[in-house]
Amino acid sequence: MIMHETLYLGYAAGIITTLAFLPQAIRILRTRQTRDISLLWAIAMNIGIVLWLFYGILKNDLPIIVANAVTLLLLLVILYSKLRYRQE
Amino acid sequence: MIMHETLYLGYAAGIITTLAFLPQAIRILRTRQTRDISLLWAIAMNIGIVLWLFYGILKNDLPIIVANAVTLLLLLVILYSKLRYRQE
Repeated sequence: MIMHETLYLGYAAGIITTLAFLPQAIRILRTRQTRDISLLWAIAMNIGIVLWLFYGILKNDLPIIVANAVTLLLLLVILYSKLRYRQE
Repeated sequence: MIMHETLYLGYAAGIITTLAFLPQAIRILRTRQTRDISLLWAIAMNIGIVLWLFYGILKNDLPIIVANAVTLLLLLVILYSKLRYRQE
């Protein structure tokens, strides 16, 4: 497989794993139910994605910056909702 | 910031966003409740992480391979549980 195809694979992977968080965020905003979402997962993901974002900025890698900026936005919605709509 | 520190940042980001899925998988296995998990999120994440795994293999990038192999394992548990313990 040539270089360009590998790059496209990376873009496809980034787009899919970024947009995956859209239906999850929408579901939570609609139902306001977050019981089955792990708080530790939501916190760790927010921290991890912030680090990925800095990594992208330091490496001047636009796809990594854009993908993680969008993911962070959606994960902040999820974490906020988890803290806001606490059940149990 | 020098090259090595950027690399360490990448490793830290990868470790955190990988291990984040551990408490989520454990929670689902323990409670067998997956109502608030978006099925579309689980499917898209599994597909996206498989693509990241292939990307890592093609680029011969061990941290990407290891991180995504572990994440995929945990996401398969989450997707299986979502399909197995369907509520509603």
